[in-house]
Amino acid sequence: MKEIAYYDGMIGTPQEVKIPFDDRVHFFGDGVYEAALGAGGKIFLLQEHLDRLYSSAAMLDIRIPMEKEALKALLLDLLSRADNQISMVYWQVTRGVSPRSHTYEEGMEGKVWVLIRPSSPKDPRTPVQLITREDTRFYHCNIKTLNLLPSVMAAQAAKQAQAAETVLHRNQTVTECSHSNVAILKDGALISHPNDQWILRGITKTQMIQDCWRLGIPVYERTFTLEELMDADEILISSSTAFCRYADSVDGHAAGGKDPETRQRIQRALLEAYERETGTTCGWL
Amino acid sequence: MKEIAYYDGMIGTPQEVKIPFDDRVHFFGDGVYEAALGAGGKIFLLQEHLDRLYSSAAMLDIRIPMEKEALKALLLDLLSRADNQISMVYWQVTRGVSPRSHTYEEGMEGKVWVLIRPSSPKDPRTPVQLITREDTRFYHCNIKTLNLLPSVMAAQAAKQAQAAETVLHRNQTVTECSHSNVAILKDGALISHPNDQWILRGITKTQMIQDCWRLGIPVYERTFTLEELMDADEILISSSTAFCRYADSVDGHAAGGKDPETRQRIQRALLEAYERETGTTCGWL
Repeated sequence: MKEIAYYDGMIGTPQEVKIPFDDRVHFFGDGVYEAALGAGGKIFLLQEHLDRLYSSAAMLDIRIPMEKEALKALLLDLLSRADNQISMVYWQVTRGVSPRSHTYEEGMEGKVWVLIRPSSPKDPRTPVQLITREDTRFYHCNIKTLNLLPSVMAAQAAKQAQAAETVLHRNQTVTECSHSNVAILKDGALISHPNDQWILRGITKTQMIQDCWRLGIPVYERTFTLEELMDADEILISSSTAFCRYADSVDGHAAGGKDPETRQRIQRALLEAYERETGTTCGWL
Repeated sequence: MKEIAYYDGMIGTPQEVKIPFDDRVHFFGDGVYEAALGAGGKIFLLQEHLDRLYSSAAMLDIRIPMEKEALKALLLDLLSRADNQISMVYWQVTRGVSPRSHTYEEGMEGKVWVLIRPSSPKDPRTPVQLITREDTRFYHCNIKTLNLLPSVMAAQAAKQAQAAETVLHRNQTVTECSHSNVAILKDGALISHPNDQWILRGITKTQMIQDCWRLGIPVYERTFTLEELMDADEILISSSTAFCRYADSVDGHAAGGKDPETRQRIQRALLEAYERETGTTCGWL
């Protein structure tokens, strides 16, 4: 089991690789990122993650200094060097290196970072507990940026409450969690927040929605309230590194757990896609 | 004229000082900062900046690994080593170094960063041009964090429009600029956004308000609208590194410039305080 860090051509352990003082990430959080699971020499849903990274970068006028195919090859090369059974493959692009100034020179070359370390998806059969909190983030939640302080504070609040995640809401409308999407099942249908500026378009969430349509499970991409969350048949929490889990309590009150059959169909479809793409077995099917 | 960088005990040029891969600032923008002007061996309003830094850190549960007096001594030592006529003294504290995770170990030791380089306040006699834009930042603008992407994009928009700053507004209510506060003069009184979560409590702004009370200029700490901005007698833009400037246009329309006497009294009071504290002359009095 190995950890690999990469920055702008340098490869080593996270202890070996050092970053220039003037990388703009140090002063502005000026970058975008992705994270996925790697196994069997493959990265699950890699093309979708790459597409989202380049979209995030374009929305912030950040120049990624290599083509998608080259970045893909870099990630797969580093994954194979790490040689873990299952890896978290994390990568980001920062705007570049220049003396601190809010403004930047247009066209400056971005810096590519990669971090690979042992990981595993979470057991989808074990329910999780949630808390709720006001969503105080900026209005660019559709962009996967490194400006993550409100998410850090929300995740820390969950940890302190011995919960797995914090469900965020804007004036009672559920948006997403600190580092996961949240969807609900009601009367056999999946309800998921639309892909506007208030949530990140989750890659796992998108895969789940495609699975639902394929399986004949209706999908409504619309907002839902905290009250609907509490009253849902199932509450699904999804992310690229933990996959799809379900909740059995919110703020200490029992919730969800009323439609295990539909929930398990969705969870299974996701795991099957993972096993198919990586050629590995997850042990839960 | 010299640039000095400092990170966690290391001192060198910005090219020499390198940062560990796992500093949490790399993944979350997880830190708080301050910037001020240094001259004559002094840092203008240093105690106020230090007080704000420790407040920002406390609000995010970040531990600054030294007492205020020790940090003050460090900043003054580095300032004297740089030996510039006027320096920008920039410093920040990041939460610490640990493997990437949204959650953190409580009590982890923060890392102190300092950057010193030649600088100067801006000529207060030259008017600036402004543009306006929706304020899309998070709900923690009272904390001086490194989550600055919306400010970067707003500053870049100003640069592209050949303006000095972008005035941000939430639903027509003016908040502040990308890296300055904005106040207006109307009928001889100063109107300035209250110190709630929507703006940073500017150190220069606070000094200006104190000066106004001392000078008998009434101050109203209340919100004002874009319409009031356009109709103001004067528009004042203030920051710790550029001091107090005034605007003569907003979005290409003439604005302000109708009460130079009151405006200049406020500008002069600020420059006098700077000259008094640093024992230097700015050349504009």
